[in-house]
Amino acid sequence: MDSISLVGTVSIIVAGLTIAIGSIGPALGEGRALSEALNAMAQQPDEADTITRTLFVGLAMVESTAIYCFVISLIIVFANPFWDFVIQNAAP
Amino acid sequence: MDSISLVGTVSIIVAGLTIAIGSIGPALGEGRALSEALNAMAQQPDEADTITRTLFVGLAMVESTAIYCFVISLIIVFANPFWDFVIQNAAP
Amino acid sequence: MDSISLVGTVSIIVAGLTIAIGSIGPALGEGRALSEALNAMAQQPDEADTITRTLFVGLAMVESTAIYCFVISLIIVFANPFWDFVIQNAAP
Amino acid sequence: MDSISLVGTVSIIVAGLTIAIGSIGPALGEGRALSEALNAMAQQPDEADTITRTLFVGLAMVESTAIYCFVISLIIVFANPFWDFVIQNAAP
Amino acid sequence: MDSISLVGTVSIIVAGLTIAIGSIGPALGEGRALSEALNAMAQQPDEADTITRTLFVGLAMVESTAIYCFVISLIIVFANPFWDFVIQNAAP
Repeated sequence: MDSISLVGTVSIIVAGLTIAIGSIGPALGEGRALSEALNAMAQQPDEADTITRTLFVGLAMVESTAIYCFVISLIIVFANPFWDFVIQNAAP
Repeated sequence: MDSISLVGTVSIIVAGLTIAIGSIGPALGEGRALSEALNAMAQQPDEADTITRTLFVGLAMVESTAIYCFVISLIIVFANPFWDFVIQNAAP
Repeated sequence: MDSISLVGTVSIIVAGLTIAIGSIGPALGEGRALSEALNAMAQQPDEADTITRTLFVGLAMVESTAIYCFVISLIIVFANPFWDFVIQNAAP
Repeated sequence: MDSISLVGTVSIIVAGLTIAIGSIGPALGEGRALSEALNAMAQQPDEADTITRTLFVGLAMVESTAIYCFVISLIIVFANPFWDFVIQNAAP
Repeated sequence: MDSISLVGTVSIIVAGLTIAIGSIGPALGEGRALSEALNAMAQQPDEADTITRTLFVGLAMVESTAIYCFVISLIIVFANPFWDFVIQNAAP
């Protein structure tokens, strides 16, 4: 197995697993926050505006951890410096 | 096993596992939020509109983590730069 | 084991595992939401229409994560670019 | 397997796993804090301002642990001194 | 596998895993403390100042454990004495 196969293979595996594993935490965390928000709204309908605003700003912060994983996945697929080096050296 | 078989095989495996593992978290998170929403509606039927609106915007954010996994899966299948490089070099 | 056998074998295995693993999360999430919906209806029979409508739109979003897995499985079986490449090169 | 393949391969694997594993804790922690904040707002609507301010300063601290992982991932991909040394020595 | 490859490889692996594993505990701990603080504020709004001050001093101490991991990761990447020794001895 030469360098190109190895680096390419590993990049594909890691790109997929990074976003797969990295989406579990944010999805569960957002689901929990969302369910509590709806519960809070039912208890205090008058505060629905404040609760909704806080919820979405908070969800954006939780979402950011998923976006970090997505960015790393895309970098590994499309802007991988290790792959660039390997194919440059292998090019005739 | 040559480069083409290896990269192709790994791409198929990772594309499948990425969306398979990546759908567990969002599905459970959305299910939890949805169940709480229905519970909240039963407690405060008058707030059903607000609860529904918040629910669907929130679900869209949870859904986004599943969509990240789906995008990476599709990229690995149809826009895989590693595969493109390998078959270009192998072409006669 | 030549390339055709290998890519074909892996495609079959992954197509099956993708939808198998990918159906666990949505099924549990939908089951939970549905059970809560029935509970909520029992508490507020007058709101059955609103609860049902919210339930089905929400279930459709949870279902979408299962559909992503289904799509990837179908792509791996019927529109697999890796398989197409391998059989084209092997054709006489 | 030569040094370049080895160091490149390991860098890709570690960059992906670092952010994937590192995003689980912050996402769950933020989700928990956010859900409790919404619950607290429902109990004490008058304190919504204080609760929101405390929440976001706290979330920023939890988020910082995810950012540490993201920084280490980016360093391993783009500013890796081990990789720099290996390719410098291998260059003709 | 020579000394340089081995030490470099292990350094990369450990740098990534250190901050990845090391961020799980602080993130969950901070999330828990933050959620309890918000709950306490809702019960005793008059004590919000005291609760907030105690929370942030406490969070800073929990955060310090994450910072220790971050520092060790950076030292392993950028100021690794083992790596310095190995490359000095290997240099021609």
